[in-house]
Amino acid sequence: MNPPNSGAGERSPAENAQLALLLDVAAAPKPGNVDRDHDHADLRVEHFLAGAVGAAPGLRRAAAGAPVGLAFERAVAGMARRAGTNTQFGSLLLLVPLVRAAADGGAEDHSLSPDGAADVVAATTVADAADFYRAFEHVEVAVDDPPPGMDALDVRRGADAIPVVRERELTLAEILARSEGDGNAREWATGFERTFETARAIADGDGPLPGRISRAFVDRLARTEDTLVQTVHGPDVAAAVRERAAEARGDPDAVAELDADLVDAGINPGTTADLVTAATFVALERGVEV
Amino acid sequence: MNPPNSGAGERSPAENAQLALLLDVAAAPKPGNVDRDHDHADLRVEHFLAGAVGAAPGLRRAAAGAPVGLAFERAVAGMARRAGTNTQFGSLLLLVPLVRAAADGGAEDHSLSPDGAADVVAATTVADAADFYRAFEHVEVAVDDPPPGMDALDVRRGADAIPVVRERELTLAEILARSEGDGNAREWATGFERTFETARAIADGDGPLPGRISRAFVDRLARTEDTLVQTVHGPDVAAAVRERAAEARGDPDAVAELDADLVDAGINPGTTADLVTAATFVALERGVEV
Repeated sequence: MNPPNSGAGERSPAENAQLALLLDVAAAPKPGNVDRDHDHADLRVEHFLAGAVGAAPGLRRAAAGAPVGLAFERAVAGMARRAGTNTQFGSLLLLVPLVRAAADGGAEDHSLSPDGAADVVAATTVADAADFYRAFEHVEVAVDDPPPGMDALDVRRGADAIPVVRERELTLAEILARSEGDGNAREWATGFERTFETARAIADGDGPLPGRISRAFVDRLARTEDTLVQTVHGPDVAAAVRERAAEARGDPDAVAELDADLVDAGINPGTTADLVTAATFVALERGVEV
Repeated sequence: MNPPNSGAGERSPAENAQLALLLDVAAAPKPGNVDRDHDHADLRVEHFLAGAVGAAPGLRRAAAGAPVGLAFERAVAGMARRAGTNTQFGSLLLLVPLVRAAADGGAEDHSLSPDGAADVVAATTVADAADFYRAFEHVEVAVDDPPPGMDALDVRRGADAIPVVRERELTLAEILARSEGDGNAREWATGFERTFETARAIADGDGPLPGRISRAFVDRLARTEDTLVQTVHGPDVAAAVRERAAEARGDPDAVAELDADLVDAGINPGTTADLVTAATFVALERGVEV
């Protein structure tokens, strides 16, 4: 395992995760998202920078081998404290297990693979699930209503849901497996399949890294309906956004127009941004440099 | 002293210093500098983000009470390793003693004052001077030729100058006191006079923090000739830049025009950016939030 605070020498997983969070807002255009090109009315680039600063201690805990749930809760708490709002909750839900997998892999980095990430997910406990619920105490997160019969486990209950989690002996992996239709939960359930696929696209791209991240974002949006857009605006809007991204892909003017239209309409494909941030982390772990 | 890795709760000085480095590139326009609005050909925003990530362990060392020279050398080493170039050497030269002064001040923050910062400077040793010279091994820094008779202490000699430093028993404060005409050395010699003055302007400003930083940058450039511009382009150019900033101050169109002209001419008022970054840190320590 890399020493989490070594100070020089190796590029630690916690540093790479923080840099991935920062590159997320340096990359533009990422249609509909806060990025280098534009802010939203009440959510600005500096909130994301502050969130990345505040999340770092939690990311270092993950790299040092702390339980995934605890490291995530600490990262979210630090993010919310510095940003004053929810900037990177979803990104951290992907980054924390990946940081842990990278740190577990040691110098050879063998474990930063779909299998290594799946091992981290499979090892999560009921205590991790409890800390996951505690993380919702720090921020407002846009989520769907829970499936029928799952009200007691609604994440919006925050820490109040913990007794039920303990009674049913649900691990964090099991909790997320019940979040059908959420893009981040899907990554947890699939060994981060799309994350690793997108990381390859970023690593194999040409030119400055933010441009490669921007293109990977549009490519992903063209292939997969964004589940935050589904939650906030409904499935028809999510389908239309995916279709527009597929048409705009590879055409900078069309991408810029899509960006402007989504910003005007207040449509923010945030789950796609979460995934691309996690993919940026994987690419950095595999040696990509700014 | 704040625990440097507390993870939640207080906003640690090391976190505030990293956030100040990040806000430096989020603030625009900062005429002639890399910022949110534009990159230079070979120096881009992502290099500054990576530099801020890499500098953090050195900043945490400063907050934990490490010697100022060692913390600075570690911060520069980490910055250079991640950014691959010199992005924030001058900012770190100001931030490290200020972080140390803030941490020494404890919960009451009494010591983050010109007097507290001057105490940190006065306490520097010959060992701190040696580490300062070692920091030059990591990066190329644009500096003036040394004064007559000072060749043996030319910072461009890096670690080769250390035997002479030891023989003459020069502390880091004494070394910097000999750097006549350098804006950052002036801050070390004056209890960070202009830094604290600029911090007040940022703290007292209105609107989003990056805009306040941008205005503070133009105000400072209008009042003080930038010493990096003096070194690279000569005193006449530095005087002309100051005059243009004084004319443009308060007029967004004129500031944008000055920015474009400086970028075209390859003129980068980097010492002013160093000072404004240090002032942003002081403002954050005093409770300013994003």
